[in-house]
Amino acid sequence: MKVGSVEKQLEYMFRPKSVAIIGASRKPGKIGHEILRNLIEYKYPGKIYPVNPSAEEILGLKCYKSVIEIPDEVDLAVVSVPAKLVPTILEECGKKGVKAVAVISAGFGEIGNVELEKQIVEIARKHNMRLLGPNIFGLVYTPSRLNASFGPRDVLPGNIAFISQSGALGIALMGWTILEEIGLSAVVSVGNKADIDDADLLEFFYHDEDTKVILIYMEGVKNGRRFMDVAKRVSKKKPIVVIKAGRSERGAKAVASHTGSLAGSDRIYDAAFRQCGVLRASNFEEAFDWARALATLPPPKGENVVIITNGGGAGVLATDACEANGLHLMEMTSDLEDRFRKYMPPFGSPHNPVDLTGQASEEQYKGALLEALNEPRIHSIILLYCQTIITDPLKLADAIVEAYSEAKTKKPVVVNFVGGVECDKAMRRLEKAGIPTYPTPERAVSALAAVHRWARFAGHIS
Amino acid sequence: MKVGSVEKQLEYMFRPKSVAIIGASRKPGKIGHEILRNLIEYKYPGKIYPVNPSAEEILGLKCYKSVIEIPDEVDLAVVSVPAKLVPTILEECGKKGVKAVAVISAGFGEIGNVELEKQIVEIARKHNMRLLGPNIFGLVYTPSRLNASFGPRDVLPGNIAFISQSGALGIALMGWTILEEIGLSAVVSVGNKADIDDADLLEFFYHDEDTKVILIYMEGVKNGRRFMDVAKRVSKKKPIVVIKAGRSERGAKAVASHTGSLAGSDRIYDAAFRQCGVLRASNFEEAFDWARALATLPPPKGENVVIITNGGGAGVLATDACEANGLHLMEMTSDLEDRFRKYMPPFGSPHNPVDLTGQASEEQYKGALLEALNEPRIHSIILLYCQTIITDPLKLADAIVEAYSEAKTKKPVVVNFVGGVECDKAMRRLEKAGIPTYPTPERAVSALAAVHRWARFAGHIS
Repeated sequence: MKVGSVEKQLEYMFRPKSVAIIGASRKPGKIGHEILRNLIEYKYPGKIYPVNPSAEEILGLKCYKSVIEIPDEVDLAVVSVPAKLVPTILEECGKKGVKAVAVISAGFGEIGNVELEKQIVEIARKHNMRLLGPNIFGLVYTPSRLNASFGPRDVLPGNIAFISQSGALGIALMGWTILEEIGLSAVVSVGNKADIDDADLLEFFYHDEDTKVILIYMEGVKNGRRFMDVAKRVSKKKPIVVIKAGRSERGAKAVASHTGSLAGSDRIYDAAFRQCGVLRASNFEEAFDWARALATLPPPKGENVVIITNGGGAGVLATDACEANGLHLMEMTSDLEDRFRKYMPPFGSPHNPVDLTGQASEEQYKGALLEALNEPRIHSIILLYCQTIITDPLKLADAIVEAYSEAKTKKPVVVNFVGGVECDKAMRRLEKAGIPTYPTPERAVSALAAVHRWARFAGHIS
Repeated sequence: MKVGSVEKQLEYMFRPKSVAIIGASRKPGKIGHEILRNLIEYKYPGKIYPVNPSAEEILGLKCYKSVIEIPDEVDLAVVSVPAKLVPTILEECGKKGVKAVAVISAGFGEIGNVELEKQIVEIARKHNMRLLGPNIFGLVYTPSRLNASFGPRDVLPGNIAFISQSGALGIALMGWTILEEIGLSAVVSVGNKADIDDADLLEFFYHDEDTKVILIYMEGVKNGRRFMDVAKRVSKKKPIVVIKAGRSERGAKAVASHTGSLAGSDRIYDAAFRQCGVLRASNFEEAFDWARALATLPPPKGENVVIITNGGGAGVLATDACEANGLHLMEMTSDLEDRFRKYMPPFGSPHNPVDLTGQASEEQYKGALLEALNEPRIHSIILLYCQTIITDPLKLADAIVEAYSEAKTKKPVVVNFVGGVECDKAMRRLEKAGIPTYPTPERAVSALAAVHRWARFAGHIS
């Protein structure tokens, strides 16, 4: 029996006052050791209680023989013991009054032990505990400084909640987000989804002020109807990006042998996602490209997109991509053309793409960008730069940040710089200032298109 | 009148014994200065003759009043003077017996000065000189240590010849290849293609032993029939990858205002490329992804592809991508399954994808990879790795390199590591060993699919 709303129940999981690690280990490399170490080193400010019947102390913390012995309330228990011991452990957790459990242990439904999995869910329900897993690598929630996972430690705080049905890929992507400097509010390994599923997590993140975008790697959904109902409601408020693996026939078979999920007909998924406003990405690079834009940009108020570039070729590539991605390039009016002409030599082009030419200085970029930002008929901007010997990418980045902060209104701006190591640095500088950047014109366009699709669904564009 | 074969004529341009820079400048930042500096600093071993009527010496080199005065033969003249002076300069080059000219100067057909452009071509033809440009950023040919461009200096030597119709984008991509550590044999800015066009360059690179793949950024082709004839012949020997901008209606208009080319019907281009075996990429990231694989991998002897992974999710994503890209995943036979089973725990999967599970060690990876490399029924391999705490990415990279060098036969292997900074380092190590790596499973699959498409066209797969 569930008591209270889902988001209240999951509060104990994401914002626990105390965490017990049941199956804590002294041995580096062991899962029960790595989770404890991550918790400590990521500086979780609550109480941490390692549980191990044969240890006095692990990593400087006093160890308890069982969860029952802990002289304090326990909000979250992370369980990493052999599968067959999990039922006993959960009974103890229930008796102790633990509010939520994350079952790391594998060896349940994914290898055919369906009964054991049912049993642990029943125990959890009996004691009013919500259960994450089993067969997971843990969870991270950066606003609580909670890293209860055996994945990488230094997850960067941000506004994207990442939910993964895959273990190894999920852990690897945690590391990848650190490398790519992508900030996350949460990482949740859902594993077999025996109790807590995607819909529950959507409910929680719907209410979570620290989450702006929800990104899900998914192989299958158990309760499709409920997922759709919840996703439709959540999408109106916060964008949901999904990577749904098992698109192909052979991929669906691989899914079955991997997580045991039914991948289902891909067309049905496609239609369902569209109906609920869920943005389906075709790979994780695209998914995070979109999520970064959705997490930082305000929704556009209309469909008029303008491209500003110093390279005709880059402008053409972006134009092609706009058409392919359903973005509307604004038809320029003569008054606007006159205004843009001030920032280019006579052989520039004030049409859309606005081509400032290879001779464009950072001042000209800034001027043209400010015109576009302050013009109410323009709703979104794609800013492209091809590295030249005339304009310094870092100075240009500063000019863009200045224009963005001086502008009267905020509107979506996506940026692509093409060039060498200075361009890379300049793009990282823009990212830090909250302007999403992309390594190609096409990826910038694709991200902006996702923002527009979501804004249409959520009713921001009338 | 042209004398000799195209490739002989272009020898003077790519392997000149001496280069004159007409319009050499003392002033840093000026094009005529930057080209001269690149030539010197990239360590061109031939003779360099700056020409400037009002300078005695530039960058330590004696300066000549005109090309006529140079007391030596001149193979290549790089011309950077105002457009209206170009005819006179070319007449002088002709009298001097210069073999090839690269006209950097802008202000010809691209701004409507069609007559002036015709005139310079006539002068070049009259004197048996081939002409690159006008309106170009120069050319680079790494086997000659020739950087006669005002783009970035330190182009990395390699086997990909890059031809660009766009100026700013071409220069920016030069810098990008350095950042991405992609090796090039040549960078050629073709500009207005008044004389030398893509077909001529294909002829040259067809015969060039230092070039394995030709990559073209193209907005339009002037002589479509000839391009197709040449491309078809060249493709049988060396892969050609094309980014053709102006796919969309609006993009085609942007092309017209950029380089003045007629983008033409995109469907016709698509069909034509397919007929000649030209691989059409949809953006430059994809184009270079493909080119790197095509430049390093041997052609596959058949269609049987095997995926080896430690992450089920990554395996599923790659499986989906194989189906989407027309790659055939081999149906495993029981004898092969038994052989792969040796390298995984009982809960691993010896089907295709071969899932070694998150517990896979580098020895197990090496063993499984060697099985696949030495098995004649397997023709290509996709190797995926999700970073775990069990396997060190750098050690795994070493194990892969070992397996690749110990294998009895060479076959295409593409690699994707997902994870943090160590994965990035490990992939760079694999690249150095000649194994192409990609940041996502999908990009690895897409690159391998390009290799297969080319191998089918060129008759390597029967």
